[in-house]
Amino acid sequence: MTQLFPSQAVIREVGLRDGLQSIRTILPTASKLAWIRGAHAAGLRELEVGSFVPARLLPQLADTAELVAFARTLPGLFTSVLVPNLRGAQDALDSGADLMIVPLSASHAHSLANLRKTPDEVVAEVARIRAARDASGARTLIEGGVGTAFGCTLQGHVDAQEVLRLMQALLDAGADRVSLADTVGYADPRMVRELFGRAVDIAGERFWCGHFHDTRGLGLANVYAALDAGVTRFDACLAGIGGCPHAPGASGNVATEDLAYLLGSMGIETGIDIARLLALRADVAGWLRDETLHGTLWRAGLPKTYAARPAAIAA
Amino acid sequence: MTQLFPSQAVIREVGLRDGLQSIRTILPTASKLAWIRGAHAAGLRELEVGSFVPARLLPQLADTAELVAFARTLPGLFTSVLVPNLRGAQDALDSGADLMIVPLSASHAHSLANLRKTPDEVVAEVARIRAARDASGARTLIEGGVGTAFGCTLQGHVDAQEVLRLMQALLDAGADRVSLADTVGYADPRMVRELFGRAVDIAGERFWCGHFHDTRGLGLANVYAALDAGVTRFDACLAGIGGCPHAPGASGNVATEDLAYLLGSMGIETGIDIARLLALRADVAGWLRDETLHGTLWRAGLPKTYAARPAAIAA
Repeated sequence: MTQLFPSQAVIREVGLRDGLQSIRTILPTASKLAWIRGAHAAGLRELEVGSFVPARLLPQLADTAELVAFARTLPGLFTSVLVPNLRGAQDALDSGADLMIVPLSASHAHSLANLRKTPDEVVAEVARIRAARDASGARTLIEGGVGTAFGCTLQGHVDAQEVLRLMQALLDAGADRVSLADTVGYADPRMVRELFGRAVDIAGERFWCGHFHDTRGLGLANVYAALDAGVTRFDACLAGIGGCPHAPGASGNVATEDLAYLLGSMGIETGIDIARLLALRADVAGWLRDETLHGTLWRAGLPKTYAARPAAIAA
Repeated sequence: MTQLFPSQAVIREVGLRDGLQSIRTILPTASKLAWIRGAHAAGLRELEVGSFVPARLLPQLADTAELVAFARTLPGLFTSVLVPNLRGAQDALDSGADLMIVPLSASHAHSLANLRKTPDEVVAEVARIRAARDASGARTLIEGGVGTAFGCTLQGHVDAQEVLRLMQALLDAGADRVSLADTVGYADPRMVRELFGRAVDIAGERFWCGHFHDTRGLGLANVYAALDAGVTRFDACLAGIGGCPHAPGASGNVATEDLAYLLGSMGIETGIDIARLLALRADVAGWLRDETLHGTLWRAGLPKTYAARPAAIAA
């Protein structure tokens, strides 16, 4: 019955991008800088701070370059941004971000509706981004993120073979890293274990990240299944913000604080100080007073046994 | 990477006992009868309907005998009740319940505070209950439920060896079934897989049920880990009621509707009609207007792909 789990895992806080782009509140830059500072102080070492998209489309994220510039001043912080196309990638290269995520939607319907490109057109764009990156001499890594990997609210079923084909195509086009995302909360742990297992087999060290939404309550169960499949890097949003425009009030990403607790309790080192993370969550809750927040740990706090958890596990 | 999961699992709805005993609202008997009827109509086939304790201690549950009598009229419904001692067991035998759960707390501090007995005194009581059951000729099964199996808010750490010793002692004393409960939400999936794995090895077919609280968000991840350890029977409360008197607002048991979705999505048959279950949840929410409810599925509804899930899994 003994299972092998990794000794370490990484949580990438994506609240400043995936979280803020889905809610109404426009957070002032000063609060975002405090969020970045607080996340770093709590031990998070990977942040997705924004997206290089036209400000008229996502005014919430118009200050992304400024956030990257600040994040780069914090020691040991690995800074990611999202870029939808070559234009955004140029901005990302200019900003000096450590990594740019190019989203691809495995659902053709979702891809056309959200990105106005077919998935294979996105693959071609990644090849152009790779060429531009190499020409620039910049060291910004390229992550191809395959979204709607378990289905989509527009198209419904998304074929797992198609997901893996597109992931392979991204690797072939020059993505340094690939990820899978359950964008709309359709995955269950069985699907996750199977699909992520196959993805890790294909991409090996270049498999980067699992991204789960908690739309139907299975977010952390899915994380656990992905851990079991060999994934050691997860996206999350403080207070579970994010949501889904198609389901008002629905949970967003898995909550960073609950995920940090899951991993920490299992004895998997994340470098995160949960007490500090909960304090930052309280700040975020103050900034986002009009939004529905999620997450569970913040109410009950850490178990009395948490500090002594290695002994509990060894028992 | 392929894992074996059971083809079937059973959810025991315990909202009428574990849920209602922890909240302020006293639900009228008529509403409880409607709850039982609705749960049966939604396909649930195991319910814990109440507890045979003195009405002055838990006035919320004073109508337990009436609820058992009604539940016995519904075809195929297996009716459980909680009994703290021999006195309650006599009532349970008289009521004709199919099963009586005797709670034992593996935490000595919690046991003394809540049951006013040491764990071993509870084991001795189970032996007396077994003798009474056998003498009565009744067919009511006895389940020994080991609570605070992963720690306790009073004592902190609870030793896994002690949990397993007490479980074995319950079996030796004549319990027909044994269960483990994470009463206060201290478990993580790694602990669950290890402890439940060992418990199933020891008790075999007599291992009955996993009981998880979602106090810190890990409830369904823990269920998944228990499934992985061979457990096929789980307690849950509609709308995740229950909570914990020590943590106001904290989640209670795993939500029946989210658990039914987890299992159903994984292709594990429960016999539950989730649409009907969500309708019952809406009724319960109406009855418990002043209580904080939990659960996630009810907001977003089932995925578009849910009906076609076997195809999705096979992909």
